[in-house]
Amino acid sequence: MSPEESVADREQALTDEVLASFDGTADPRLRLVMQSLVRHLHAFARDVRLSEQEWEAAIGFLTRAGHITDDRRQEFILLSDVLGLSMLTVAINEPKVPEATEATVFGPFFVDESPEIPLGGDIARGAAGTPCHVSGQVRDTDGAPLPGARVDVWEADEDGFYDVQYTDDRSAGRGWLRTGPDGEYRFWSVLPAPYPIPHDGPVGDLLNAAGRGPMRPAHLHFKVTAPGHRTLITHIFLAGDPYLDSDAVFGVKEGLVVETAKHHGGGAPDGSRPHGDWTSLTFDLVLVAEPPTA
Amino acid sequence: MSPEESVADREQALTDEVLASFDGTADPRLRLVMQSLVRHLHAFARDVRLSEQEWEAAIGFLTRAGHITDDRRQEFILLSDVLGLSMLTVAINEPKVPEATEATVFGPFFVDESPEIPLGGDIARGAAGTPCHVSGQVRDTDGAPLPGARVDVWEADEDGFYDVQYTDDRSAGRGWLRTGPDGEYRFWSVLPAPYPIPHDGPVGDLLNAAGRGPMRPAHLHFKVTAPGHRTLITHIFLAGDPYLDSDAVFGVKEGLVVETAKHHGGGAPDGSRPHGDWTSLTFDLVLVAEPPTA
Ligand SMILES: [Fe+2]
Ligand SMILES: [Fe+2]
Repeated sequence: MSPEESVADREQALTDEVLASFDGTADPRLRLVMQSLVRHLHAFARDVRLSEQEWEAAIGFLTRAGHITDDRRQEFILLSDVLGLSMLTVAINEPKVPEATEATVFGPFFVDESPEIPLGGDIARGAAGTPCHVSGQVRDTDGAPLPGARVDVWEADEDGFYDVQYTDDRSAGRGWLRTGPDGEYRFWSVLPAPYPIPHDGPVGDLLNAAGRGPMRPAHLHFKVTAPGHRTLITHIFLAGDPYLDSDAVFGVKEGLVVETAKHHGGGAPDGSRPHGDWTSLTFDLVLVAEPPTA
Repeated sequence: MSPEESVADREQALTDEVLASFDGTADPRLRLVMQSLVRHLHAFARDVRLSEQEWEAAIGFLTRAGHITDDRRQEFILLSDVLGLSMLTVAINEPKVPEATEATVFGPFFVDESPEIPLGGDIARGAAGTPCHVSGQVRDTDGAPLPGARVDVWEADEDGFYDVQYTDDRSAGRGWLRTGPDGEYRFWSVLPAPYPIPHDGPVGDLLNAAGRGPMRPAHLHFKVTAPGHRTLITHIFLAGDPYLDSDAVFGVKEGLVVETAKHHGGGAPDGSRPHGDWTSLTFDLVLVAEPPTA
């Protein structure tokens, strides 16, 4: 046996011992997940011949991430985001139905208690930015409209901040409404702006070391819920945004990028007559029917 | 293209996009490590078809680990230990020299400032347990003795606790000495006891779910330093210990297990005449010469 074989055998014997230690896991799914994690984690360390200094750096990185994480900041989600694991998890779990609207990351800025607005109402409620009229239809993959579906929307303002990032407890740039008889939805909002993910912690240091930026292209978040259908969590991105090809969290999908029409004065789709500059965009949201769970 | 191929292609495209985002990493070693990490992390998530609930559980686990970690508790090292990553890192970095004493995990209980004791002195200094006389030779792989080598030793007492785990600031069960003219070392200590790794946090929950115990077999820690030689970090384990085959951190190697001789009264190797029960063991420590670093 060559020295290299002996090294490989010794390392494999250790991996096998660790795998066997999970043989007694009562939950078969947990056993499968943990044994796969051990296999891939060990393969990583062996492939790169992980040094003791690198192992220490990894422990230090995770420790810093843990200590910066609190009720308002989740560094482990950011880490998952910038490693593409969040979007991969979305992709793995997304229904494989080409007609359906694609999903993307949920993000950390959703708030459970947001105000209901009427169809055609205003979710901006004071958020700064150019008015934007958003409309479309919620339907299923067979083309049947979904009246009464719940549409939750949230967005950053023109300065790139969500309401919860201000310290004055404001609620703005978020709300929910129900679709009308033909599945239609419409509301006023403001044009969102690109923004950086929090980058003053270890994840920001990693991005910096990798020569990567922290920016996300401007987007509107949607969560669409209808009985008998799989909940859709997605964004609308704005065509022409400079960060569409370099989203820090890999959330952009071509089918989620929409053109924005620019207007000045005149008549809006809801019959109102805005003064000054405003914009509009249209995007249909297509849900997948789900068999009822037992 | 079959639907399965399309799913695989879409997931691979995401992985490729994440890999490419690290292409601009200035440090080539960091680029290699991060791209390998992304490849293996994504392969894991794809292999197990990671669910969104499982992803959330992982984020919650890491968050708890971060919040329980402080100056006295390092849950990320425990996690690395119970996944075998710590021992794998030791194995990867160990000199591939069959004659050398094998290395094992460093553990969290080393203290920088420990007392120097004379050759033949007592490191127990009040630690509870049956006296144990430990002796051997420090030499290199060619058999040349290493006089003046520094031998650091630390151990749990008969209750399974290190001094630093007591709240009374005691210093006991640790010390260092220099080898004599023929590389010989000898000291009095107490027989160490098996002990559990801290298991009241997320790592303990994981062990529990896996049906694994938290125990480590009894051991004496050694750190041996000699100029021109690679520092050896290892344990001596006691033959017959019930946990030798189920060390929670996979640290046991056959060559590190030693027989303990039992005695009652009579004459000890150092000429003293202990009253009552005492024990003795002998273990040689063989270091690898290192070329001087530039
Ligand atoms: Fe967002
Ligand atoms: Fe120990």
